[in-house]
Amino acid sequence: MPRPLELHPDRLFPNESNTRAIARSLYQSIKSLPIISPHGHTDPAWFANNLPFANAAELLIIPDHYVLRMLYSQGISLDRLGVSRVGEKSGANPRDVWRLFAQHYHLFRATPSRIWLDWVFKESFSLEVALDESTADYYYDHISQQLASPEFRPRSLFERYNIEVLATTESPLDDLRYHQAILKSGWNGRVITAFRPDPVVDPEFNGFLDHLSQLGNITRYDTFSYQGYLKALADRRSFFKSLGATSTDHGHPTAATADLSPLEAEKLFHKVSQSSVDPVDAELFRAHMLTVMAGMSVEDNLVMQLHPGSYRNHNKWLFDHFGRDKGADIPKSTPFVEPLRPLLNKYGNDPRFNLILFTLDETAYTRELAPIAGHYPSVKLGPAWWFHDSPEGMRRFRRQVTETAGFYNTVGFNDDTRAFLSIPARHDVARRIDCGFLAEMVAEHQLNESEAHELAQDLSYNFAKQAYRL
Amino acid sequence: MPRPLELHPDRLFPNESNTRAIARSLYQSIKSLPIISPHGHTDPAWFANNLPFANAAELLIIPDHYVLRMLYSQGISLDRLGVSRVGEKSGANPRDVWRLFAQHYHLFRATPSRIWLDWVFKESFSLEVALDESTADYYYDHISQQLASPEFRPRSLFERYNIEVLATTESPLDDLRYHQAILKSGWNGRVITAFRPDPVVDPEFNGFLDHLSQLGNITRYDTFSYQGYLKALADRRSFFKSLGATSTDHGHPTAATADLSPLEAEKLFHKVSQSSVDPVDAELFRAHMLTVMAGMSVEDNLVMQLHPGSYRNHNKWLFDHFGRDKGADIPKSTPFVEPLRPLLNKYGNDPRFNLILFTLDETAYTRELAPIAGHYPSVKLGPAWWFHDSPEGMRRFRRQVTETAGFYNTVGFNDDTRAFLSIPARHDVARRIDCGFLAEMVAEHQLNESEAHELAQDLSYNFAKQAYRL
Amino acid sequence: MPRPLELHPDRLFPNESNTRAIARSLYQSIKSLPIISPHGHTDPAWFANNLPFANAAELLIIPDHYVLRMLYSQGISLDRLGVSRVGEKSGANPRDVWRLFAQHYHLFRATPSRIWLDWVFKESFSLEVALDESTADYYYDHISQQLASPEFRPRSLFERYNIEVLATTESPLDDLRYHQAILKSGWNGRVITAFRPDPVVDPEFNGFLDHLSQLGNITRYDTFSYQGYLKALADRRSFFKSLGATSTDHGHPTAATADLSPLEAEKLFHKVSQSSVDPVDAELFRAHMLTVMAGMSVEDNLVMQLHPGSYRNHNKWLFDHFGRDKGADIPKSTPFVEPLRPLLNKYGNDPRFNLILFTLDETAYTRELAPIAGHYPSVKLGPAWWFHDSPEGMRRFRRQVTETAGFYNTVGFNDDTRAFLSIPARHDVARRIDCGFLAEMVAEHQLNESEAHELAQDLSYNFAKQAYRL
Repeated sequence: MPRPLELHPDRLFPNESNTRAIARSLYQSIKSLPIISPHGHTDPAWFANNLPFANAAELLIIPDHYVLRMLYSQGISLDRLGVSRVGEKSGANPRDVWRLFAQHYHLFRATPSRIWLDWVFKESFSLEVALDESTADYYYDHISQQLASPEFRPRSLFERYNIEVLATTESPLDDLRYHQAILKSGWNGRVITAFRPDPVVDPEFNGFLDHLSQLGNITRYDTFSYQGYLKALADRRSFFKSLGATSTDHGHPTAATADLSPLEAEKLFHKVSQSSVDPVDAELFRAHMLTVMAGMSVEDNLVMQLHPGSYRNHNKWLFDHFGRDKGADIPKSTPFVEPLRPLLNKYGNDPRFNLILFTLDETAYTRELAPIAGHYPSVKLGPAWWFHDSPEGMRRFRRQVTETAGFYNTVGFNDDTRAFLSIPARHDVARRIDCGFLAEMVAEHQLNESEAHELAQDLSYNFAKQAYRL
Repeated sequence: MPRPLELHPDRLFPNESNTRAIARSLYQSIKSLPIISPHGHTDPAWFANNLPFANAAELLIIPDHYVLRMLYSQGISLDRLGVSRVGEKSGANPRDVWRLFAQHYHLFRATPSRIWLDWVFKESFSLEVALDESTADYYYDHISQQLASPEFRPRSLFERYNIEVLATTESPLDDLRYHQAILKSGWNGRVITAFRPDPVVDPEFNGFLDHLSQLGNITRYDTFSYQGYLKALADRRSFFKSLGATSTDHGHPTAATADLSPLEAEKLFHKVSQSSVDPVDAELFRAHMLTVMAGMSVEDNLVMQLHPGSYRNHNKWLFDHFGRDKGADIPKSTPFVEPLRPLLNKYGNDPRFNLILFTLDETAYTRELAPIAGHYPSVKLGPAWWFHDSPEGMRRFRRQVTETAGFYNTVGFNDDTRAFLSIPARHDVARRIDCGFLAEMVAEHQLNESEAHELAQDLSYNFAKQAYRL
Repeated sequence: MPRPLELHPDRLFPNESNTRAIARSLYQSIKSLPIISPHGHTDPAWFANNLPFANAAELLIIPDHYVLRMLYSQGISLDRLGVSRVGEKSGANPRDVWRLFAQHYHLFRATPSRIWLDWVFKESFSLEVALDESTADYYYDHISQQLASPEFRPRSLFERYNIEVLATTESPLDDLRYHQAILKSGWNGRVITAFRPDPVVDPEFNGFLDHLSQLGNITRYDTFSYQGYLKALADRRSFFKSLGATSTDHGHPTAATADLSPLEAEKLFHKVSQSSVDPVDAELFRAHMLTVMAGMSVEDNLVMQLHPGSYRNHNKWLFDHFGRDKGADIPKSTPFVEPLRPLLNKYGNDPRFNLILFTLDETAYTRELAPIAGHYPSVKLGPAWWFHDSPEGMRRFRRQVTETAGFYNTVGFNDDTRAFLSIPARHDVARRIDCGFLAEMVAEHQLNESEAHELAQDLSYNFAKQAYRL
């Protein structure tokens, strides 16, 4: 006897009835606003080619590192989950993968994955029963059947989800062929790119030297000279911008910045562009390049995003056998105050500069980030990120950041996801939590209702559009 | 059509109706208690001279670094806000400054500045409409007119605010003429000083050597010999105490303490009292001097306050052009456990010693500060400080500190402000939040109502009086 | 007129009435489950000898470092509290100690000690009036009288408390005579040991070299050779396991681990087993030994617990005069991500390995621990520990850990106590808080009630049994 799948209309609102009523009213007024998705990792090929997605497992399980992580933590091997080993192709049957997932779906209780997936099941696939072992096959067949229909092609979903703009993230080495194809296709969905230079800026990135060569080939600059390298980067930024990019994104291990003299920078570049790189040099070079990138943002107005603090590929065995992005990145302590100072001293007061800061280290919210964003005109705070993109994570963000930074030094919501179907679910969670937060402020008589209505719209829509110059 | 300015009687109380009723009852019983303000930065000249305040902008905007910070973060220049550049006098028209502020007053939504200012507008100036662009001139005229009346002279406000005692903070180089004038004036308002030796204890303080000379001139000790320097400090402490001081205050970058041998200390003093100072020496000297100051507290019973952890003047350009205290101080990670050990090992068990610790790094609440205050007889915790002097900040303080340190190792509320008119507003916020916290404990059956009533009075009044020996 | 002692049936539940009703219903279904106490510090001699406890002060005050800590922090000397100085026997009269405690019982308001003690007074001793100065003697006499009765012998209490299994913690040097006696006695209470090797693994442990000798004497291995030392450890683990142990426990200053080559390890062992030890060597040796112990766990299946991050004996004077465990241990910042990597890279993916992590640094919950436990199959998170074993501490744990690690990577509750009589009180607090947390998730429509009922049982009973292989 399957259990019903319910998405209660009041879910994630505060429990106290008066506050809940306020939250409900706020939510009603903004729940249908278009989605602004200014930062994420969907594949532009989906929208360029508009081919059907394969099946439930390949769409919803195998590429989702949140899902893999939790199942792996409970002793389920990635092999059985259909994840390919490096250099091999997984032989797992997608239906078996789905069954395994369904059988362990209880593990996701009280996690955001459960919220997102239940939304996808109900709102996207119109499923009415809950997922468990007994309904696994029914789900698999139902989803596969729907995916084959025209309504479930990427562009149809994009329109159905009421996405006004969706940013993907590409390397400077990417030729942006899919973005070009989208533009040429006549389809009016707005899918733009963002410039993510880590592969050519981080000397410890796998294949860095090879990337430098490629960058040279693409741009025709001598990317093994520091001047040529800088010109090549500016050139690629310009190309990205010409295809709609409004932002850059920087995924550094730390928030370290540096402002080397041209001579020092040139010498350091010479060192790190040799075959073997010293970790201290690599860190200093990344630090310097953040300041360089900020300088380029001052010129070309691309909004700069900094996502520091993840210890990538913490599990060596897993990385060696299955590669990146399988749920083994672990956040670590991430100071900002001293690390950001060289960059902020150079560009922090420049009205042409826009820097959006993210963190996985929530201790920085009240201590460092809200004070920095609440002072520097160039800095705003990105939303609760990655592990913290969850009801409690978002509540902590608002409660810890707002009193010092205000609402107006924040930038609305980012879904930051590869999981295309979950995008509306993620924005819905953010809107519900923000409405709940505003409702609490109204119930405590810190805001009046008209202010809260205005802010609900800002947090759901306006701020993201403004902050990312969309 | 201006909106009404409302201060709801239940503001900041918990939302759940039963809990709110308990909070309301607790608050009723303590809301009219006199204000004890044992730590702050008001100007004693106000109470000595009792001259009228100038106008709304010069009273409420230009000297308030919370307000400047937020406006600056949104791209409003300090020049337009009437802040003088170093060595210049601002030419901004105060009314224009006020209009600019009014136009951007929405930026303060959900910040404590909004709560404090609305209180000042309504309770001090009897304004009945909300501040926005349309009411800016009305506000400016109304406030300026009131400020000219005798009821708005500093002493009248002091009395009307029911302040029992107000501590200011002065450098050892201050001659305390205003405190002397107040004492001689026959006015019975109790305005006392606190001894803040940073300018003569921190070798990196701007003008340190010059301060040493001045200290020598004032005390007639040879302040370039270590023994003379110590005697001069003891002498000034004694002078401050004779004019009512009951406490000292130390605003160090870190909580580092050290206990050097007399010979080491003398050598180090010799080094730091030369022209150029090494940062490591400066840190060690500050660390040592905290222990020295603790030793003097053991002798003269002045309560010692330590306020560590602010990275001062983070924005170099702003500091160079506008100077200190313009909203560009950023908190940083501040460990206590190892840093405080030398001082605590020397004086931590001494019944004559009283140390009140503050932090901007909230991670220390549960991890370090509550355990330290919950063990050492000499240590108590100061209230949520600076960026955390806000509803959520105070709630985090109580929730994170109380279970380990209890209520009785805390010291009630400090307003710590230069903004004289906001003092009652700040105490009112603290009283409301504390009553709400106690109400939650009653509603959860952790405390009974009579205990909560007793504690509400302790937190609002008794603890501050006792902890600061007032 | 004494006040009544009340334990409200709804205590510690959420305040909102609908949520409270859900919590109440969840709690009803699990409140009578047997107690699994898989980690603690009770004295096995109590259960072996089954002698009566002495009196209220010697049972409830003098050995309880939470109680001593708070009283000491308010200036009450340990001498007056009946704590013996090193090498002396306290001459304090237990009744006087009790009176002193009763007189200061208000200090414990809003602390977990108050919750635990009130439970003991009411539920264990059937007291109906609250403790204060006026009821001190009545309490003392009543408790002493009851302690003399057969119903208050350790085994009777064990049975009355419905304890299914209770683990104590012993050094490898312990001969486990009391555990053997319990087994031989025919009593069917399950009291097991846990292997805590700190005294023979930590070169900075007082008496380390002497402990090595003893270990050699006990096992007949040459414990001053690295190979003999390792064999001796394996031998003792095996002995502990034969008497019921299912886990080991490691109380290190940090979470540092290392994986030295056999040659490096042998050299380092040679250094630290000499008379004077360098702190850096000691830290590296402890780090290496954690990895060695993990390897032994892979072989013998003992579940490994790591309790890092306490700065032991912070108060030197107190330690010199009164010794360890008097409330002067202070938590400090405790990173996990890089420190644990050597161990996790070696054994983190091994299905035979089980590691339970604890922390006193709550900043690691969302940043490091939940992501680690939510990825590595070998790792689970222990409950809120020590200072955080309190209503707010447990709420923070659940709110910060669950969304990333889920419920299923946690291990239920540990009481971790020496205070035998408080064990049911502590489990009751955990059950109430967990039911409240689940009720909030139901009220927010994140879980349905049947899921919450299942989880309430898991959190209260099943998870502890499974995680500790009981």
